[in-house]
Amino acid sequence: MAGSTFGTIFRVTTWGESHGKALGVVIDGCPAGLELSESDITPYMNRRKPGQSRFATPRKEDDSVEILSGVFEGKTTGTPISMIVYNTSQKSHDYSEIATYYRPGHADFTFDEKYGFRDYRGGGRSSGRETAARVAAGAVACKILKQLNITVSAYTASIGDISIDYDKFDEDEIFNNSLYMPDKEAAALASEYLQNVSKDGDSAGGIIECVVNGTPAGLGDPVFDKLDANLAKAITSIGAVKGFEVGDGFKVAHSNASANNDAFVLSDTGKIVKSTNHAGGILGGISDGDTIILRAGFKPTPSITKEQQTVNKDNEEINISVKGRHDPIIVPRAVVVVEAMTAITVLDSLLMNMTSRLDNIIKFYK
Amino acid sequence: MAGSTFGTIFRVTTWGESHGKALGVVIDGCPAGLELSESDITPYMNRRKPGQSRFATPRKEDDSVEILSGVFEGKTTGTPISMIVYNTSQKSHDYSEIATYYRPGHADFTFDEKYGFRDYRGGGRSSGRETAARVAAGAVACKILKQLNITVSAYTASIGDISIDYDKFDEDEIFNNSLYMPDKEAAALASEYLQNVSKDGDSAGGIIECVVNGTPAGLGDPVFDKLDANLAKAITSIGAVKGFEVGDGFKVAHSNASANNDAFVLSDTGKIVKSTNHAGGILGGISDGDTIILRAGFKPTPSITKEQQTVNKDNEEINISVKGRHDPIIVPRAVVVVEAMTAITVLDSLLMNMTSRLDNIIKFYK
Amino acid sequence: MAGSTFGTIFRVTTWGESHGKALGVVIDGCPAGLELSESDITPYMNRRKPGQSRFATPRKEDDSVEILSGVFEGKTTGTPISMIVYNTSQKSHDYSEIATYYRPGHADFTFDEKYGFRDYRGGGRSSGRETAARVAAGAVACKILKQLNITVSAYTASIGDISIDYDKFDEDEIFNNSLYMPDKEAAALASEYLQNVSKDGDSAGGIIECVVNGTPAGLGDPVFDKLDANLAKAITSIGAVKGFEVGDGFKVAHSNASANNDAFVLSDTGKIVKSTNHAGGILGGISDGDTIILRAGFKPTPSITKEQQTVNKDNEEINISVKGRHDPIIVPRAVVVVEAMTAITVLDSLLMNMTSRLDNIIKFYK
Amino acid sequence: MAGSTFGTIFRVTTWGESHGKALGVVIDGCPAGLELSESDITPYMNRRKPGQSRFATPRKEDDSVEILSGVFEGKTTGTPISMIVYNTSQKSHDYSEIATYYRPGHADFTFDEKYGFRDYRGGGRSSGRETAARVAAGAVACKILKQLNITVSAYTASIGDISIDYDKFDEDEIFNNSLYMPDKEAAALASEYLQNVSKDGDSAGGIIECVVNGTPAGLGDPVFDKLDANLAKAITSIGAVKGFEVGDGFKVAHSNASANNDAFVLSDTGKIVKSTNHAGGILGGISDGDTIILRAGFKPTPSITKEQQTVNKDNEEINISVKGRHDPIIVPRAVVVVEAMTAITVLDSLLMNMTSRLDNIIKFYK
Repeated sequence: MAGSTFGTIFRVTTWGESHGKALGVVIDGCPAGLELSESDITPYMNRRKPGQSRFATPRKEDDSVEILSGVFEGKTTGTPISMIVYNTSQKSHDYSEIATYYRPGHADFTFDEKYGFRDYRGGGRSSGRETAARVAAGAVACKILKQLNITVSAYTASIGDISIDYDKFDEDEIFNNSLYMPDKEAAALASEYLQNVSKDGDSAGGIIECVVNGTPAGLGDPVFDKLDANLAKAITSIGAVKGFEVGDGFKVAHSNASANNDAFVLSDTGKIVKSTNHAGGILGGISDGDTIILRAGFKPTPSITKEQQTVNKDNEEINISVKGRHDPIIVPRAVVVVEAMTAITVLDSLLMNMTSRLDNIIKFYK
Repeated sequence: MAGSTFGTIFRVTTWGESHGKALGVVIDGCPAGLELSESDITPYMNRRKPGQSRFATPRKEDDSVEILSGVFEGKTTGTPISMIVYNTSQKSHDYSEIATYYRPGHADFTFDEKYGFRDYRGGGRSSGRETAARVAAGAVACKILKQLNITVSAYTASIGDISIDYDKFDEDEIFNNSLYMPDKEAAALASEYLQNVSKDGDSAGGIIECVVNGTPAGLGDPVFDKLDANLAKAITSIGAVKGFEVGDGFKVAHSNASANNDAFVLSDTGKIVKSTNHAGGILGGISDGDTIILRAGFKPTPSITKEQQTVNKDNEEINISVKGRHDPIIVPRAVVVVEAMTAITVLDSLLMNMTSRLDNIIKFYK
Repeated sequence: MAGSTFGTIFRVTTWGESHGKALGVVIDGCPAGLELSESDITPYMNRRKPGQSRFATPRKEDDSVEILSGVFEGKTTGTPISMIVYNTSQKSHDYSEIATYYRPGHADFTFDEKYGFRDYRGGGRSSGRETAARVAAGAVACKILKQLNITVSAYTASIGDISIDYDKFDEDEIFNNSLYMPDKEAAALASEYLQNVSKDGDSAGGIIECVVNGTPAGLGDPVFDKLDANLAKAITSIGAVKGFEVGDGFKVAHSNASANNDAFVLSDTGKIVKSTNHAGGILGGISDGDTIILRAGFKPTPSITKEQQTVNKDNEEINISVKGRHDPIIVPRAVVVVEAMTAITVLDSLLMNMTSRLDNIIKFYK
Repeated sequence: MAGSTFGTIFRVTTWGESHGKALGVVIDGCPAGLELSESDITPYMNRRKPGQSRFATPRKEDDSVEILSGVFEGKTTGTPISMIVYNTSQKSHDYSEIATYYRPGHADFTFDEKYGFRDYRGGGRSSGRETAARVAAGAVACKILKQLNITVSAYTASIGDISIDYDKFDEDEIFNNSLYMPDKEAAALASEYLQNVSKDGDSAGGIIECVVNGTPAGLGDPVFDKLDANLAKAITSIGAVKGFEVGDGFKVAHSNASANNDAFVLSDTGKIVKSTNHAGGILGGISDGDTIILRAGFKPTPSITKEQQTVNKDNEEINISVKGRHDPIIVPRAVVVVEAMTAITVLDSLLMNMTSRLDNIIKFYK
């Protein structure tokens, strides 16, 4: 039953419900000596915060994080870092109605089946709000990775049928539009599409892509803890994700090895590199030093005002319209969540990899 | 570094290389009292065995499994079940050449980077042969699931651009063609396609689909050990998998909630069921009692005779043609591997779920 | 590095330092449906709280626990239970001096060696205050065990050379004296002894014994997760514990099998029971249904006013006298900590045991 | 139920029963590049092998280990090392009688209670023979530790009431007598004592001590994975162990801090060291660089020919005399098992410790 911990060395345990007193995360196994304060976390929290754009729910959540332990005189001590976010603006009365029926596309029914009852306020533990804790942990992981010159960057690759044009890929644009799309034109089109979807009382899905640059070769532990296998779990554990790809993803199923294999060549500096990157930076479950590329497919926000059919507590079939403050799309706010889970996974593999070779261990302890 | 164990209660640890003395698996946590003998395992091993069709490598592997422990008087004792498969037909001299260069699309380079050197014989630990151990464990998981009326069934959904037609879906056909496709016509077309690919010295990819019927609602442990997250890891840990989907998968990114949400309705017997199954039997990471559906995208076998570019030991760019006995497609032999990993994951969630509710625990110990 | 989590199904993760903002615990895997409120925790916290007797430090810690998540409408939901204790009365300036040297018998030196620096305020993470979080988790475990008619009871067995007399064992007396000794006379003698030790500026050690009644046979998982092995870890992980025993403990090393073996006999009701209990309720690492008995040896509080030799930051040998509010003995306040760790361990084994037999699993899911 | 795996990074999974086909161990997470062959394992196996002295069972077990995977061209590859020991000399018919009753002091009863039935041949999984697999894994751990100048040495400290005299401690003597006592005179006395015990149809217990030299300061992960807590579990998981101590052990319960605290002083070379070692090399759960000292109390071999009372299958009280080839004392053969479990635990902590500090991680990846 205990599924709230992720990672082996850098271990993240999250807790909290959408409308409880607070939610938070404990990071156990964070190396000592990292300069850390709330100001390192806030920018990440802000990217996930609702109310940032017209496509995000207009409710205000005060997502300010407080570090409660594990930091002394501005530096991590090597002991657990506990971080808390208080739920200040939640209004439980908004949600009283949904206690009486099962919302389609939500976990209401399955939580009841598993646990016998559920915290129905705003989805309780199954709310997207749970991901705030992941983002706080991811911010710490990102800060460590940066010191190793590893960067993790996620963005929106598509919304509905509107995809970014990779020829117009503009990294700076990601933070310029509220949809986190690295293509200004696509963002404008997607914005228009979302307005229409919203007007219909409906919602939309999309795809988030994430790239990791600077990873050394060697991360990942065959055969079950392959880097891509751990990333698959990390990403698919985010609510609303229904598909995961690394590198060329499902496209490889339609390809041939002569096209899909990445040739090894010598770089200008004489290093062995791949001439292409269909593999997405991972071969045999181990990072190859190239850019790691992954994608996640998100379903449309299940809460919509458009009428839907369901069953209520009295076992009657009814038609409902889910009221409340809901995003017409999950994707933009989930971009930083994908970044966080990717960073946590890569960092954990990186720490694990330090013990792979006896010569390194001997050198370390000399 | 220790990545060879999968599962929490039903724990599977595999070992062995392609051309070592043997390979095997230890299942720890298998419940006591299951009737088990080698004859339960063999049919699963045979489905993975090479040489079964003209698209599988013509080499003969004697994949007979021997149970070494954990079974007494025909029944599992609750102690670790150790199973071994001896490598009898491997000819190491076939592979001496590949020691001198990095095969594109293989883990040769990344193993060297991680561990400092590699067992180059047939790919060593990164060989597809490793999955034989998974299949042996999966056979045990399947047998337990069957006693709970849960069935796991995988099949080939597409090869190259040839997909099965769901209107012509014929379960019996799966075992009638060597490609494990539930559509006779698609199988014939795919077979023709593979002959051409093979003639070209090239290889092809494909998609495997897996359905699980009979699971109770309630399996899966939010927020990180969601059933779909664990399945994502299980499946992506299979070599050559580059994409994973549950339910409608990446299609949801193009859909709207009004179409994608599955309405709850009452069945004829008054049970709450979903009218459709876009979710693939999992809501909020917990099984909903409906059919679980997942898909895996496999890349083309990287070993091809067609000329490719790479770098050798002396740091020279060279052109190579990979000799040896290689399947022109991984997919058909991987069908049973997908089935095995799915079964192991579902069973582990099922055991974990027994402790979810206090009332059940009290009843159990009374 | 991540060592702050204990348990497999009922998983306890603690965090926090002696003089940080707060400390707390996350329980993941607590079954749903348990009635729980802060009032269930407080009595346990009070037993650990300082200032309860003249032998406990006179400082006042407000150890009031707040439940932040995992409980809804008075019952556990099956999601993580986060509990927090704010550090309200800590005065950091009391501890400024100890930043400059290594206190003998403390973890100051080893934390510096491991992490490069340390939170020196009151011992930081290595402070006995850390155990408050364990006690909060233990209170939850105890409440669940009680519903299964399992009781866990710890008490002081000896202080210095003064041991309880088992012929005068009086369970009610445990809560009647501030030393938690089940023997009034021994408690009086120990009290006198402690006054003298205290006057000397010194401190004393002692032994805590813990008995568990009502456990079913079958708990514990050979070969490494034997019930006694897990208890050994649980208890030895409490700061200041230097020895652990189960049943007759080290005495068995001096015994013969004819005396040490417990004969099996039939009880009045025809049940198979042991005629004696040298084994302490555990055979082959599995509970046998008899009373579980364990003991822990605690060292004297290392902080004493008596002069001691050590080395300071400038690498000079100096003599010190540790000022501050310190207990002249750890034992009485640790009684409830031993109880907590025992309860957590037994509960975890109990949950794990539910999956031991196929027939039980089949029955459960029918 | 899965309790056959020990360790986090250096992970050991054992399997096999006393009278099954074979038993073995899989080491996952062994660093790559260690020179390893069967000849490294054999000397350790020989120390555990029966028939070495007149106090060990006269049966011959051919404990020759075969490495099946994880080693290539004489060096570990970083992939799982599978080792197997075939059971060649076991005669099952010797044990047919014990199937009908519960042997006092054995796990017969508890295995039946837990699993519903048991492999009664020679104790099955609960046999001391299980430790052969631990010893094979320990030999690998010891070889790695030696390359880091860390030595692990166990010996018999007492048998019955006969203890070694530390003033006469002679390391070379350990391997000179069949009881592994570092004191020739004590060994002679113990030998005489055991002959008498044996003549009586009885058996004896004893204490094994283990010292680890050369460990760096910093090993162990508070608060639950303290080095001593992990050692407590490792040692107590050995069958027949009923007590565990580190450093002065239970003696500290009778001491005062002024005597028990180890003063810090400067060594001749200006290093901070302890003037005494009551702590046994571990402070706050972390190694302090001093010698690690631990002790384990073993009960007498429960199988004796002397008559004992028990209950049989037909629920009748009967008197039995356990026939078969049994050691009159477990201790001498368990010496190497204690050494093995200690080595595995120390090595695992050592690997884990590499990720404790950010500066070390940055240096490692530069």
